[in-house]
Amino acid sequence: MHEVSRRLFLTASALAGATFAIPSSAAVRFAGVQGPGVYRFKLGDFQISALFDGVWYLPIDDKLVRNASGTEVNQALAAAFLPPNILPISFTALLVNTGTKVILIDTGTAGQITDTAGSLLDNLYVADTDPKAIDTILISHFHPDHIDGIKTLDGAKVFPNAEILVPEPEWAFWMNDANMGPAQGAVKRYFLNARRIFKDIAGETRRFAAGAEVAPGIVSVPAFGHTPGHTAFAIHSANQSMLAMSDTVRNPYLFARHPDWQPTFDMDGPQAVAARRQMLDRAVADRMLVQAYHFPFPACGHMAKTATGYEFVPVEWQPL
Amino acid sequence: MHEVSRRLFLTASALAGATFAIPSSAAVRFAGVQGPGVYRFKLGDFQISALFDGVWYLPIDDKLVRNASGTEVNQALAAAFLPPNILPISFTALLVNTGTKVILIDTGTAGQITDTAGSLLDNLYVADTDPKAIDTILISHFHPDHIDGIKTLDGAKVFPNAEILVPEPEWAFWMNDANMGPAQGAVKRYFLNARRIFKDIAGETRRFAAGAEVAPGIVSVPAFGHTPGHTAFAIHSANQSMLAMSDTVRNPYLFARHPDWQPTFDMDGPQAVAARRQMLDRAVADRMLVQAYHFPFPACGHMAKTATGYEFVPVEWQPL
Repeated sequence: MHEVSRRLFLTASALAGATFAIPSSAAVRFAGVQGPGVYRFKLGDFQISALFDGVWYLPIDDKLVRNASGTEVNQALAAAFLPPNILPISFTALLVNTGTKVILIDTGTAGQITDTAGSLLDNLYVADTDPKAIDTILISHFHPDHIDGIKTLDGAKVFPNAEILVPEPEWAFWMNDANMGPAQGAVKRYFLNARRIFKDIAGETRRFAAGAEVAPGIVSVPAFGHTPGHTAFAIHSANQSMLAMSDTVRNPYLFARHPDWQPTFDMDGPQAVAARRQMLDRAVADRMLVQAYHFPFPACGHMAKTATGYEFVPVEWQPL
Repeated sequence: MHEVSRRLFLTASALAGATFAIPSSAAVRFAGVQGPGVYRFKLGDFQISALFDGVWYLPIDDKLVRNASGTEVNQALAAAFLPPNILPISFTALLVNTGTKVILIDTGTAGQITDTAGSLLDNLYVADTDPKAIDTILISHFHPDHIDGIKTLDGAKVFPNAEILVPEPEWAFWMNDANMGPAQGAVKRYFLNARRIFKDIAGETRRFAAGAEVAPGIVSVPAFGHTPGHTAFAIHSANQSMLAMSDTVRNPYLFARHPDWQPTFDMDGPQAVAARRQMLDRAVADRMLVQAYHFPFPACGHMAKTATGYEFVPVEWQPL
């Protein structure tokens, strides 16, 4: 059993013992970690697990959204009972067991972005899956919080038996030296980070065209704008479908309720808005189950159209 | 370690091994259980854990709500992307660790109501807590899904070291033979069940008056109507508060969005509506964190007022 998982669960018996040994008026220890973040459901003949990686608490200012003021953003946060000036960026990846293949869609932060994220591997073990059992990794785009989980900081592959599939236009953009040349700040770091992850495994990394079927029942859906090759995935099994929207919609209280807002995260704001509206309209029209990488865990639910935007309706947590 | 928890977590290594031993084109086993249902958070100096017990899928007809049609109820379910004619009744109890006392608010179904509920004890172990470590049990009311967890079917106490506190008017109603006499159907069963649970531990069961402080920082809040002594609990620590609303509001898509609907679950419909509106108005006015026993797990969040009712805004799942 994985080290952290073992620690997580064996404390149960240890703590129970400790609690008995002391009188009830003495201190009762507080747990040190959140409960496991694994939510399973059936989609046709597939079993899907949403795996929580953590939350990045990003301090924000009035420049977060190009076409909305800091006051408007804070009002949207307050409507969700969230404090002002901090954007909680949640990370939840999808594990798809087709019955013959185990597929991971995006790979988490590997604890390389913030101290409050990096639990994906622990939750993968809770989900009964060894990293060595992953057959395929599907990457939505090359931002670090989606690809950092591919490797440890010292360059070892975390999923040694997985074929890695990436969007062709994403690869073309980030691996092109001519594009990196003028880049600055965070974008420059994204270029360098994409090379750290992919350069020495380029031969083993398969690029797919936008719209291609990338695994049994999984079709890529171009949703360019957030990045030049940003891609979503439609998952189909038997008579059921769902849409893994990747970063097409980020925080639902900000960008589903206000679909025209253009966060600075989106490299091409107007293109990202068009992709967002198109995907949300599809989800609404088909009443499709959706997942979004940055929605609150378990990050799965449905989208309803309102007078001014879209509303996320989370799945109801259910027994399997 | 508890039997079921051990089974739940040790399968991780077993399955990983099995997956390796077979070629990747062979069948990959599906997990048999949902991920653990434990959500922890800090409230002032307390640590609180929401513990999932399961969901009862209750077939309903047009008599579920006294003053709304079956069509209206199905429309409300559809707006939540839930299928018609079935009400998913979720169960989530609260574990409060004050630092010196461990308190459980309501006790789950003990698997005695439906096959799809009864995981509270498993999740209590995941939450690092042995049933023997519970100092105090607070009971909101005497419906079976709140009290059945107190005892096994053969009458053994599940929480042997816990003092059990129950609302005085609830005890007075259900333990009174004159009230049981004319009762029929489900209500008759509730009378008999309350006696099964409490009769031989009456001497150890403490009755509290509506409004009394029942534990350090926990104040009972009368919310009569659902049952004659139905009680909620306000939890206070340092400068933070939350409201455990018990059954004052059941499914949020039905009875928060439509606060005047009177489900047949509520013994006194008009009184329950008044209690519901009063409590929801308090939660809205104070922007208080709330929990409700039948809200979707983790069953914690805030209430927002809308033009026609109230909207539940779930907490965002966060690292501890």
